[in-house]
Amino acid sequence: MAKPKKDARPAARLPKGLRDIEAAELRAQAAMIEKIRAVYERYGFEPLETPALEYTDALGKFLPDQDRPNAGVFSLQDEDEQWMSLRYDLTAPLARYVAQNFQTLTKPFRRYAFGPVWRNEKPGPGRFRQFIQFDADTVGADSVAADAEMCMLAADTLEALGIKRGDYVIRVNNRKVLDGVMEAAGLGGPEQASTRLSVLRAIDKLDKFPLEEVRLLLGKGRMDESGDFTKGAGLDAATIDKFMAFIEAATGQLGETFFADLEKTTLGESETGKEGLRELAEIQALVSASGYDADRIKIDPSVVRGLEYYTGPVFEAELTFEITDDDGRPMRFGSVGGGGRYDDLVARFTGQKVPATGFSVGISRLQAALAALNKDAAAPADGPVIVTVMEKERLADYQKMVQALRSANIRAELYLGNPKKFGKQLEYADKRGSPCVVIQGSDERDAGEVTLKDLIEGAKAAEAIKDHEEWKEARPAQVSVKQKDLVDEVKKILARHGG
Amino acid sequence: MAKPKKDARPAARLPKGLRDIEAAELRAQAAMIEKIRAVYERYGFEPLETPALEYTDALGKFLPDQDRPNAGVFSLQDEDEQWMSLRYDLTAPLARYVAQNFQTLTKPFRRYAFGPVWRNEKPGPGRFRQFIQFDADTVGADSVAADAEMCMLAADTLEALGIKRGDYVIRVNNRKVLDGVMEAAGLGGPEQASTRLSVLRAIDKLDKFPLEEVRLLLGKGRMDESGDFTKGAGLDAATIDKFMAFIEAATGQLGETFFADLEKTTLGESETGKEGLRELAEIQALVSASGYDADRIKIDPSVVRGLEYYTGPVFEAELTFEITDDDGRPMRFGSVGGGGRYDDLVARFTGQKVPATGFSVGISRLQAALAALNKDAAAPADGPVIVTVMEKERLADYQKMVQALRSANIRAELYLGNPKKFGKQLEYADKRGSPCVVIQGSDERDAGEVTLKDLIEGAKAAEAIKDHEEWKEARPAQVSVKQKDLVDEVKKILARHGG
Repeated sequence: MAKPKKDARPAARLPKGLRDIEAAELRAQAAMIEKIRAVYERYGFEPLETPALEYTDALGKFLPDQDRPNAGVFSLQDEDEQWMSLRYDLTAPLARYVAQNFQTLTKPFRRYAFGPVWRNEKPGPGRFRQFIQFDADTVGADSVAADAEMCMLAADTLEALGIKRGDYVIRVNNRKVLDGVMEAAGLGGPEQASTRLSVLRAIDKLDKFPLEEVRLLLGKGRMDESGDFTKGAGLDAATIDKFMAFIEAATGQLGETFFADLEKTTLGESETGKEGLRELAEIQALVSASGYDADRIKIDPSVVRGLEYYTGPVFEAELTFEITDDDGRPMRFGSVGGGGRYDDLVARFTGQKVPATGFSVGISRLQAALAALNKDAAAPADGPVIVTVMEKERLADYQKMVQALRSANIRAELYLGNPKKFGKQLEYADKRGSPCVVIQGSDERDAGEVTLKDLIEGAKAAEAIKDHEEWKEARPAQVSVKQKDLVDEVKKILARHGG
Repeated sequence: MAKPKKDARPAARLPKGLRDIEAAELRAQAAMIEKIRAVYERYGFEPLETPALEYTDALGKFLPDQDRPNAGVFSLQDEDEQWMSLRYDLTAPLARYVAQNFQTLTKPFRRYAFGPVWRNEKPGPGRFRQFIQFDADTVGADSVAADAEMCMLAADTLEALGIKRGDYVIRVNNRKVLDGVMEAAGLGGPEQASTRLSVLRAIDKLDKFPLEEVRLLLGKGRMDESGDFTKGAGLDAATIDKFMAFIEAATGQLGETFFADLEKTTLGESETGKEGLRELAEIQALVSASGYDADRIKIDPSVVRGLEYYTGPVFEAELTFEITDDDGRPMRFGSVGGGGRYDDLVARFTGQKVPATGFSVGISRLQAALAALNKDAAAPADGPVIVTVMEKERLADYQKMVQALRSANIRAELYLGNPKKFGKQLEYADKRGSPCVVIQGSDERDAGEVTLKDLIEGAKAAEAIKDHEEWKEARPAQVSVKQKDLVDEVKKILARHGG
């Protein structure tokens, strides 16, 4: 290879919206994933992994915000000209998998999956173009018991992560109720499908915008601060009033007669809407019987969930505790996951309706939430024991000590940097969080000994001893031991620090 | 959304060369990854995760087989026209990360990483376009002790996975030795860089081709069975003879004078070659001192490793036991990983040479190897306890039993399919590997009882009892217990089966 010219050097930079995850965050993430996995396993789900790339037509277009500019997926062409895309969620690949393997699957098919998904969207603070989702889905079960179970799974998952009861709520609605409200307002029929979608998107903005802005989105549209205009659903004033009345009732303290009123008045003659209410009542009964009360799982007729493929119950997992934002203002953390029923997604391939329901949590958002609660800390990894290099022609001897420690299952390293300055070696050990360093100069070697320096004890002692001379005199937390006892003596130090 | 027309339905298919990984294989894979992680952690490496996509120019082109048609990476354009690619290994992103964070990194920087990589290459049997690598690298250490450590890490990793000593070998060479041989043969200097690369690639084919074919690749080139022609290094006959003599000596039983002869005759005046030999001797001394003898780590002057970015020691982890191929012929499993020193990769960005060395294992190949040794089995997951549905209006009662079991950390499910045919429910439990099903019909309910059916015991009994009537009479492995004792009684059954 010819040497690259100096001006041909690439810049070392990450693509926009992507990031590196370093050790501490990765360890916390791995601990979270293990806790979630344990809950999903306990619920009887089995793991499945599909590849990152799928044919674009197989994924379909089901992103919540397709109306925004640049929204979408990362796509590329195969050498045979077929378009492939990086998966944007784990549900679309599941639908492909189920359609492809339908005959041989044990049904109901219950699988969990976790892994990165990619969105070709405008990145922002805390909003990345690659992030991890953790999903559970049940395919082939039309009973709402499957949906009720997803809500309980969501609650159990958040609690397993250390989020207290009262600090979260799983809000449940049914698309059929919303469809019923729209039907009763004269927005039924296939020719008004896109209007209905606009209405759903407007209602879905309730957690972001005040009511007045949602009203604009039901009407002509809304201009944001930057001057970008979002086209509205285009409803007339009377229809908007009906929706606003429903929304205000649904988002307020639900009165005792709320559901009866909804059924008798708002839903009118809509059979779909009434079926939706019956299903919600059934979910309510199922979760209550298992002891999940409204403080954990709550019916909330204002929940939409952005995705257009939902056909029945939808759920939103929301953190309700307040945190302070960067400007010191109190704010709620909000949604960390959700899901719902999507009975048409497999039918896209096969033409045959296959009932399915699922729940998905966003790992990064949850991790940020846990950090806000100081519950994200995995037990910090114990740094490695560092065997220092005093005589550089004796590397093999030092390496042998390292291997002896490793064989005893002790995390250990030979110092591999330039050994000339001993201070650098101690500095390295310090930065790596090393509990202890091993030192053997010529004196120790002649005496068949090694010196062990307990860095944790040493740091404590250093705080206590202010005087440098006194320090040099005392050399705290440092012992000489027989070389043959190296492993046992290191074990003693680790045991002292709970390692 | 308008309904897709029938003829517009996409086919449910996977892109070529990609695959789904199902539960049993995923569990075995996860168990493998945990074992490897434990070894890498014990060696003091820290985890790092970089994103799947990188700017194409930052990744560079360092695939081993760029001369093959369609070889390469999956690339796509960002909305600002910059090209991005899916990472094809974990080393190129590491170099980018180190260059980007050089000032703040604790050096030597020791990181491990695992995850999928993608190759836009022709797929084949067992050769996929997405596969998992697990890497460890040390950056900022020019001591060959860092390379020696990689070899020991490789050996320890294979043993941790259950591969016996004697069933594998880590073969070590040094690119400087090969460079020396080429220099002595008159192939030195920057203007012959591409010839040297062709020579390396030819030698790298030693494990696939007989010597005669390698000779062709050193000369004009070679036609394969399909008629594809691979251009050779174009050496003249005398030079080819020199290389073949070296290769034959290097791949045979190395005589006692091999290295002395190599230094005195083959390497001629090449200082590079002699330095390479000194480094190999040092690696040998380091690993021997730690008890890793030639049965585990072996100097082998014929090792190349395809990647052109290696600058010093290279290692190949090879499984040496014989397995039988699909046609019943004995074959060796071959390479499952490897690595080497790459001192120029960070300099691509910064202009400043940063010494680095690493080792990488291919998870899928290793898993296939372990399967051949019957060592891939993770403990099979215990299937969930299935609570069956006898009276479908009592779903809430059954669900409550499920939640009670789950709360006691027992893997459990409500049967969510159509409950009409009870036989289907038992069939489902069977397919899921359920240890036990819970049954409560109206009689049991009136008596405040549940029936537990031990499916594992039942299956054994079924083998013993041939007669259907006798079976119905005995109803083996089935007990009625008080409903309040459900959890305890299920625990007893699980305990009986070691759950």
